Amino acid sequence: MDSEQFRAAAHQMVDYVIDYLDNIRNRRVLPTVEPGYLRKLIPEEAPEQGETWQSIFQDIERVIMPGVTHWHSPNFHAYYPTGNSWPAMLADILSDAIGCVGFSWIASPACTELEVVMMDWLGKLIGLPPVFLASTGGKGGGVIQGTASEAMLVGLLAARSKTLKRLKAEHPEKDEKILASRLIAYSSDQSHSAAERAGLLAGVHVRVLPTDDQLHLRADALQSAIKEDTANGKIPFFVVATLGTTPACSFDDIDELGPVCNDHLLWLHVDAAYAGSAFVCEEYHHYMKGVERADSFNFNPHKWLLVNFDCSAMWFKDADDIVSAFNVDPIFLKHDHQNSAPDFRHWQIPLGRRFRSLKLWFVMRSYGAQGLRDYIRKQIHLAEQFHQMLAADDRFEFPVPPSMGLVCFRLKGENSLSERLLKRINEAGQVYMIPAKLHETYIIRFAVCSRYTELSDVQASCEEIRRHANDIVSA
Amino acid sequence: MDSEQFRAAAHQMVDYVIDYLDNIRNRRVLPTVEPGYLRKLIPEEAPEQGETWQSIFQDIERVIMPGVTHWHSPNFHAYYPTGNSWPAMLADILSDAIGCVGFSWIASPACTELEVVMMDWLGKLIGLPPVFLASTGGKGGGVIQGTASEAMLVGLLAARSKTLKRLKAEHPEKDEKILASRLIAYSSDQSHSAAERAGLLAGVHVRVLPTDDQLHLRADALQSAIKEDTANGKIPFFVVATLGTTPACSFDDIDELGPVCNDHLLWLHVDAAYAGSAFVCEEYHHYMKGVERADSFNFNPHKWLLVNFDCSAMWFKDADDIVSAFNVDPIFLKHDHQNSAPDFRHWQIPLGRRFRSLKLWFVMRSYGAQGLRDYIRKQIHLAEQFHQMLAADDRFEFPVPPSMGLVCFRLKGENSLSERLLKRINEAGQVYMIPAKLHETYIIRFAVCSRYTELSDVQASCEEIRRHANDIVSA
Repeated sequence: MDSEQFRAAAHQMVDYVIDYLDNIRNRRVLPTVEPGYLRKLIPEEAPEQGETWQSIFQDIERVIMPGVTHWHSPNFHAYYPTGNSWPAMLADILSDAIGCVGFSWIASPACTELEVVMMDWLGKLIGLPPVFLASTGGKGGGVIQGTASEAMLVGLLAARSKTLKRLKAEHPEKDEKILASRLIAYSSDQSHSAAERAGLLAGVHVRVLPTDDQLHLRADALQSAIKEDTANGKIPFFVVATLGTTPACSFDDIDELGPVCNDHLLWLHVDAAYAGSAFVCEEYHHYMKGVERADSFNFNPHKWLLVNFDCSAMWFKDADDIVSAFNVDPIFLKHDHQNSAPDFRHWQIPLGRRFRSLKLWFVMRSYGAQGLRDYIRKQIHLAEQFHQMLAADDRFEFPVPPSMGLVCFRLKGENSLSERLLKRINEAGQVYMIPAKLHETYIIRFAVCSRYTELSDVQASCEEIRRHANDIVSA
Repeated sequence: MDSEQFRAAAHQMVDYVIDYLDNIRNRRVLPTVEPGYLRKLIPEEAPEQGETWQSIFQDIERVIMPGVTHWHSPNFHAYYPTGNSWPAMLADILSDAIGCVGFSWIASPACTELEVVMMDWLGKLIGLPPVFLASTGGKGGGVIQGTASEAMLVGLLAARSKTLKRLKAEHPEKDEKILASRLIAYSSDQSHSAAERAGLLAGVHVRVLPTDDQLHLRADALQSAIKEDTANGKIPFFVVATLGTTPACSFDDIDELGPVCNDHLLWLHVDAAYAGSAFVCEEYHHYMKGVERADSFNFNPHKWLLVNFDCSAMWFKDADDIVSAFNVDPIFLKHDHQNSAPDFRHWQIPLGRRFRSLKLWFVMRSYGAQGLRDYIRKQIHLAEQFHQMLAADDRFEFPVPPSMGLVCFRLKGENSLSERLLKRINEAGQVYMIPAKLHETYIIRFAVCSRYTELSDVQASCEEIRRHANDIVSA
């Protein structure tokens, strides 16, 4: 394919994706394929000779689309949103063409520098305290990670390194590996499973603490765990607090947890993967109260802020904590400007990295702060409207109030009723939702996800839910 | 931005990136900016109101391009290549539009299934033994990771988990964390620094073994390390062997190392990040002799196989090793098809993942096996031609023979002469190369990287190098 063939093919692809997204409402949100469907549709090996673009292009509808779960369908209400917008897609085309690998400043200065400044823009936009920003000239700063799960692991590993350094300084006679074996971290029963997984990956025990009846991790639960574990010879060192949990979008009170962490020298990582985007709106800043006590803060613009995956924003209060943790500096990566600009390879798990800040730049400029606020408020309002509609049917109950763009509901009665309801709805494939458990209560999650979702879609989803409920509980 | 505005903007962007790449030869490969250049060029915060596309678009040349290191310039000879091709860029546009997050089969079946089959295509294309392929119906299979450094970490963590399970079964009375503190892994002084870093991240000691005078890690060096460490109470469990090292593209003899690893129950991870792409050509298959003894194998199509970053191909001989290592399965990720198709979230560090197999599909089909072989052979030939040209100037010497697309050279005499030469060349910014150390010998690496590099570019680079050498050593 030469550049003129690419020009024609790219224009065709652009037209195709516009058509796909603008008409996504017409596609069944969940596919009907069975596992193994795709292998039967294509050859067993790569072709010996190159194929024409048209033969590749026509296979998108034949091979790919039958097996796509349409995350941007207005009827997709599962998990949480994944971002998607025209300006972000434009930025990715540019990022692909520049195709630099920004592991150090010299490997592409623009890639590093735009990221530093965009993380400041974004931090200011969500009202993050200046101590986290690079522009204040302190030790704070932000970096784009791939996912919130990586950010959690990076936070945990930085905390482990920092804690072991302190312990080694206090007890030079002790074996570092033995000290490491005594470390213990905390998450809650509402935290994302990525917290436990980070512990498995790092070889550190992550203790899951119970939340209160409002699904919040409380200071007294944390304090008593610290006390108990310390008495048993453990060394508490890391806490994940969540602003907007996956099951019910509940919020831990970091203003209450922060002082406990600071007093006991525990690293506080704030995971606001989903809800962090809503902090572009001032009316939600109260959830961040006390965030200045955190050591690291993370949210995913690629979830709810119209930036295509992957773009997970993470800030450190003291970037030295991470840079000094895993810095291996071979000669082939050394350069003359190492002390005057960050080499982001030290801030993350992988070595290589794409030019992802272009997406943030294009999206923030194209929408403007006001446009992003309007977007968030509209989606939250849609969730509230859905809640009102479904609440009018008294077969349903809502164990927790709607939170952000998420409504958790269930049929009154046994868990099994709601389980059967969800199974029916997803099998019909017109609306896609997933379940969660709030302590022992099974709920169905309705998350407003797509930027194409309008009131009429939410009304139709509500009708679909009620129709299937008729087969289980009489109206 | 609505879809019609996007159509116009995307067509403009497509035309821009074609112009950028087709004329990249005219840009200085290294930028002249100083650290901090970018912050001065843009506002301190995001705009309140959205901006027009044209105001964003015109800032690409004003703000970004002055700070770009042009990895696809024909004069870029640093590090190793990073892939870039028209078909891969088309696939990324589609991937962005579908915008699914493929952490489980149900989250988008096509995303998982195309990846399974493409990893089979790719494995067959490079001559990987069937035991690594999913299509053989055994326990093998491939997955796309982000980077070779992540693949190395994943391999190490899977090995740690597998080893600890075995040790716990053998010694149920022993504390797992104490056992873990005795683990030791091996890499060589020519392995990528990512191996040591994986050890830092995992909290495991990675011992760097010396290579022989041909820069190969030898079985006797490995055996004596195992013997010594075992005698000291350590538990050897993991070895990184490299096919195509970063400093000099040297090849460890895995046919010799494999039996040692198998005999001592050490996990063998083969890192072929760069050179693995060359295995599309049968004449290089001898480097893989004995690979069936490895537990995991990795190479980066995003380096040398014309696939845009990120796309790091990794195969396991027994995928259960990784799936069982870090499987945390909360209710919101469970689905009905968990046993009939892989949930790739268990195979990697992050939870989320993009639809990256589209790039492999488009590239393999568009070039065909023959086109990919032609591409690799052409680049290797260019390196050979460069070597011949520079060898005609007897001020230069070549401590190791050219290998694949890499030529390592130096000025005869003290290291400092070559250090000064490289500094001058990179300051002039017409050609970009980086150094390495082969044991104590400083060398300059000339890697053929860009798909735009032609013989005339290589000739011009050679002249540029010789011209700067004139200022250091008389001709």
